[in-house]
Amino acid sequence: LTPRSGHPILKPVDHTVDRYDLGIVGGGQLGRMLALAAAPLGLRCIVLDPDPACAAAQVADTIVAPLNDAKALHRLVTSAAVTTFEIEHTAPAVLSSLEDTGATIRPSPRTLAVVADKLRQKETLREAGLPVPVILARTAPGRSSWTHPVVQKSRFGGYDGRGVAVVPGGEDMPLPGDTFVETAVEIERELAVLVVRDTDGVVDAWAPVDMVFDSTLNLVSDVIVPAEIPEEVRRRAVEISIATARVLGEHGLVGVLAVELFLDRSGRILINEVAPRPHNSGHITMESSQCDQFEQHVRAVLGLPLGSTALRTPAAMTNIVGPPHSHSGAYRVIGRRQVLADPTAHLHLYGKPAVRPGRKMGHVTCTDPSTADALSRARTAAAAVAFAPSAQAKGDVQ
Amino acid sequence: LTPRSGHPILKPVDHTVDRYDLGIVGGGQLGRMLALAAAPLGLRCIVLDPDPACAAAQVADTIVAPLNDAKALHRLVTSAAVTTFEIEHTAPAVLSSLEDTGATIRPSPRTLAVVADKLRQKETLREAGLPVPVILARTAPGRSSWTHPVVQKSRFGGYDGRGVAVVPGGEDMPLPGDTFVETAVEIERELAVLVVRDTDGVVDAWAPVDMVFDSTLNLVSDVIVPAEIPEEVRRRAVEISIATARVLGEHGLVGVLAVELFLDRSGRILINEVAPRPHNSGHITMESSQCDQFEQHVRAVLGLPLGSTALRTPAAMTNIVGPPHSHSGAYRVIGRRQVLADPTAHLHLYGKPAVRPGRKMGHVTCTDPSTADALSRARTAAAAVAFAPSAQAKGDVQ
Repeated sequence: LTPRSGHPILKPVDHTVDRYDLGIVGGGQLGRMLALAAAPLGLRCIVLDPDPACAAAQVADTIVAPLNDAKALHRLVTSAAVTTFEIEHTAPAVLSSLEDTGATIRPSPRTLAVVADKLRQKETLREAGLPVPVILARTAPGRSSWTHPVVQKSRFGGYDGRGVAVVPGGEDMPLPGDTFVETAVEIERELAVLVVRDTDGVVDAWAPVDMVFDSTLNLVSDVIVPAEIPEEVRRRAVEISIATARVLGEHGLVGVLAVELFLDRSGRILINEVAPRPHNSGHITMESSQCDQFEQHVRAVLGLPLGSTALRTPAAMTNIVGPPHSHSGAYRVIGRRQVLADPTAHLHLYGKPAVRPGRKMGHVTCTDPSTADALSRARTAAAAVAFAPSAQAKGDVQ
Repeated sequence: LTPRSGHPILKPVDHTVDRYDLGIVGGGQLGRMLALAAAPLGLRCIVLDPDPACAAAQVADTIVAPLNDAKALHRLVTSAAVTTFEIEHTAPAVLSSLEDTGATIRPSPRTLAVVADKLRQKETLREAGLPVPVILARTAPGRSSWTHPVVQKSRFGGYDGRGVAVVPGGEDMPLPGDTFVETAVEIERELAVLVVRDTDGVVDAWAPVDMVFDSTLNLVSDVIVPAEIPEEVRRRAVEISIATARVLGEHGLVGVLAVELFLDRSGRILINEVAPRPHNSGHITMESSQCDQFEQHVRAVLGLPLGSTALRTPAAMTNIVGPPHSHSGAYRVIGRRQVLADPTAHLHLYGKPAVRPGRKMGHVTCTDPSTADALSRARTAAAAVAFAPSAQAKGDVQ
């Protein structure tokens, strides 16, 4: 691979590579785990990320440039047989024109265009007859004139709870920019269903998971599989999620789709949000299912047969997040010893170059026939991990 | 990490790395799978290998130099908190002096000194009361004066069946160099037991496996777990292997030890050979056990708690080997689609830069309650993989 622009490729190790198998827009933890899943299949990955020390750069070759850099995106898609995403926030217009000129991009930039605009996402699903919260206003007013709580949402760029505000009746709308307003759902529990669509349009689903949120960080803290829901709810959650993948399939969806769902107090299921990529709610599949979301996404976008989504074992996952009063910057991990002392614990640290408060740094999944026991142990294990501001000492690691 | 010698470090991606967690002598498939196991634990690896396009270089940083290069070995051990091996054939004297000056090397170079010389290996185990074939001569004569078949073995450097010759009574000894002679065992079956010893001297064992050999390549072709042996044989095989790890523990063994065993026609178990590292007979643990040999080796040498060796599922593994009439050189993999169409198949391709006849290119493990069914499917899957001499096409991979 010879350089074709000013962006350095780091790790140009194998000069015999004519073409990478998989290009990935974004080199965070999702890109890293995609690359780690691709390696055993003998597939070579190249990621695009602005940070040369991004999580994925340790295990894949890297083009260092902003995610919306047109020249870098061109270089990525021409370097790889197929290009995919770990993040929706990129340059859909650039990618669309690359797709129009023959690049293989999965999911299609058309999928991103539907999904990245949360208003268009909701309206597309609603028009297809799928259950979404009622949209009260396509543009938020300065102040709520509703007498009940509503939800103001950013159309673009929100993630991990950012870009969402619950607004009591009569109060000012806090979020700037393009926002819309939907009804506040009385949430009984939050579920997610990971589904996958292959290049032939075959759709399959993993078992629904329970998502537990940290109300301070407004971030998913734990995921439990199987979700503790009645069979009828489970069946309906899977049906809705598979139908969602079919609707987005008409817009070019190929690969994993995470469908986040609300179960409301009247027992209705509503689609909260979708992401056309591996997702935090699917990390648990690495231990809980036959084929996990990362290998499955790689298989799907490369046109390979799908793996089995069958449940292998009940499990619980807890995120490892930079603590509220953490320093920001380089770090040394402490607590591996405590995590690994639990034989049911599987540690996943992302190797991010810096810690900061609220940043996802890793996760722990514990397997157990009892999901309550698994959750208790996953939380204990995750809480044992800390991030010290000093460098690695000689000898044993912690 | 700043360069301290003439050897280039490729992939110096994260300049904030003061020190790698793990140095690995050798960047073949074992180094690659060690690095892939270390990554989820948030551990950074650096490998030493003469080939900048070695299998491990795609997923770890690399020092490019011969494995016995004193300056490169110095650089490796001073770059990493702990250094380990994927291959025994290195420079034990250099490593011993590095260990004497404070480098943390696990297993100790003293273990390598015992194991790398197969005569010393056998004599050390025999002196400890462990069952090994009878050594008939410490130096092979030019011609066998025995009336029955004997085995001539190279003391140094043999692997994958090289350095071993069965010599009928009265015939010439074919192997050059330092060789010794032992009795030919009447082999009923070949078993392997993977064991691990941690820094506190705790030893644990995985379930014994059956090894099936390709008589043409004199290379293990299939591995089956659990081995189909009576409980008493199983118990004894594990006992002998754990005792072997304890004996080598006195010589500094830390990490995984593969113990290859003969079960002879009279029901005796004899130690054929040991390797103080992950081993082809242990690849199956990636799917068959709670914690596999690669993560376990990483845990052990870094002083972390051992994982569980418990059996998760019966399984069979088949090696994917460069075919007898293969071209030698760069290649494109064909047949992924057929392998991945079997939902019980787990594909592991090593990403080696070139194929050649007889070269281990990957393996497939199939899981199934019936090991016979698993073996049949693993063989079918492995046989579907081929290596074409052309480059990767655009679009779907094969």
